[in-house]
Amino acid sequence: MKRWFHLTIAYDGTRYGGWQVQPNTIAVQQKLDEALERAVGYPVKTIGSGRTDAGVHAEGQVASFCLDYWRPEADCLVHAINRNLPSDIAVRACRDARPGFHAIREAIAKRYRYTIRSSRVPDPIQQRQHWLFGRPLDLLAMQEAAKYFVGEHDFYSYQAKGAPRKSTVRCVSELTVTSRPALDGHDIFVEIESNGFLYNMVRKIVGSLVQVGVHRFPPEWIPEVLAAKDHEKTGQTAPAQGLCLVQVFYPESSFDLQANASHVESANEVEEVESGSD
Amino acid sequence: MKRWFHLTIAYDGTRYGGWQVQPNTIAVQQKLDEALERAVGYPVKTIGSGRTDAGVHAEGQVASFCLDYWRPEADCLVHAINRNLPSDIAVRACRDARPGFHAIREAIAKRYRYTIRSSRVPDPIQQRQHWLFGRPLDLLAMQEAAKYFVGEHDFYSYQAKGAPRKSTVRCVSELTVTSRPALDGHDIFVEIESNGFLYNMVRKIVGSLVQVGVHRFPPEWIPEVLAAKDHEKTGQTAPAQGLCLVQVFYPESSFDLQANASHVESANEVEEVESGSD
Repeated sequence: MKRWFHLTIAYDGTRYGGWQVQPNTIAVQQKLDEALERAVGYPVKTIGSGRTDAGVHAEGQVASFCLDYWRPEADCLVHAINRNLPSDIAVRACRDARPGFHAIREAIAKRYRYTIRSSRVPDPIQQRQHWLFGRPLDLLAMQEAAKYFVGEHDFYSYQAKGAPRKSTVRCVSELTVTSRPALDGHDIFVEIESNGFLYNMVRKIVGSLVQVGVHRFPPEWIPEVLAAKDHEKTGQTAPAQGLCLVQVFYPESSFDLQANASHVESANEVEEVESGSD
Repeated sequence: MKRWFHLTIAYDGTRYGGWQVQPNTIAVQQKLDEALERAVGYPVKTIGSGRTDAGVHAEGQVASFCLDYWRPEADCLVHAINRNLPSDIAVRACRDARPGFHAIREAIAKRYRYTIRSSRVPDPIQQRQHWLFGRPLDLLAMQEAAKYFVGEHDFYSYQAKGAPRKSTVRCVSELTVTSRPALDGHDIFVEIESNGFLYNMVRKIVGSLVQVGVHRFPPEWIPEVLAAKDHEKTGQTAPAQGLCLVQVFYPESSFDLQANASHVESANEVEEVESGSD
């Protein structure tokens, strides 16, 4: 009898070509699938909630999969899989999900955190986890600019070229810019939650916030860029290593073990290409 | 004309065989000396404030050296050296020191931080920087035990076997145990400042604190271990990767540029072997 699972995974993306299997690189998903196969004894294909780019990290990536036969508690899979993973990937939790649970289709929101280290000198211990930015940044101006992204907007300007979507309207429910002292400077954290993300959307938003932070543009420039619907206007795209997928949200119904699998599998209206977001 | 410098260095010790040059490993100091040579054009030998073991990190290691000829601001050496260092080592600051400044002999105190991750699951992003400890730890009991280390004590029990010192008396001016929420658990930080450290002293102190944290011994066991003067009594030695050299302290006189070099060089009473501490 098939049994469906919701797996929470963390990884340091530095060594990988991204979440998804790509030619000529090692993917996080590939390492996970291999570890899962060694844990259960037969090949299993996981589905991630979405891709993350090369060098992007995750604290809370989610993958769905089903097993033909697994008797123990779902939780027992955590250590069984971790035993077979390299030290820069780890399963944090595993729980039962409803029949047919699909990590892409059922995700209702995601949360990312971007870290900018504002400092003149590199930090060799944390360097993999931030964008080292040597010029001073105006935190209040960045916080002012951040407000313009919150709510439902057409984020056409904030998607990478050549990654078209049917709709580029997304609803950002939260976007905060905070700061904390760090070695020889400050860490500036941009945390963003939305019902969906276009490809490179977070990194382009951070790039725009930094343009405001260095006073190249005022905060009021953000609504202009959104209105222009032109992805050349956003300025730079922040580098991958500062980005971390913090959490993926699912409705309670995804964990309703009594649900009807066939019903779920037909509720397939979400664009498959959404999986390219990050 | 010779000019003396005080250099502050940070490093991720994961890839290195420790601070000091050892056979068959790559040392942090070796990388620094090579980078300094490329920056100034001739070989320069630095002196570190003390060794750190393989896998131990530093936010504030200090090295002294002198140059035969250097006209620009001391600060200009920071970027000149960093350009030639791998990404897991970085110079944070460089300032002029008094003639004959010696990073071992003049150090008056050091501060270390040890990080224990109390969690059942590994954290792939921060794993290089903590000791993953799967059992619950009693923070209050550890704080109680920590008090017994503060003050002047004979730390004979808290040195590694086979690293004898003339005197094993040290004065710990501060030892705090604090906690902060972290991924799937807590980070417990042990911060310790002392006028000197014996070899493996911090890691053995942390090992004892953890014995108290898991209720194997009560806090009052610590003064017994100190009194026993027996390095078998301390229990385990905490692993290297949780340890970080945070800061090395020097007196104001180390930066007195008018001081007499010959006087300083004769003030050579500190045991050379002290450099083995960490």
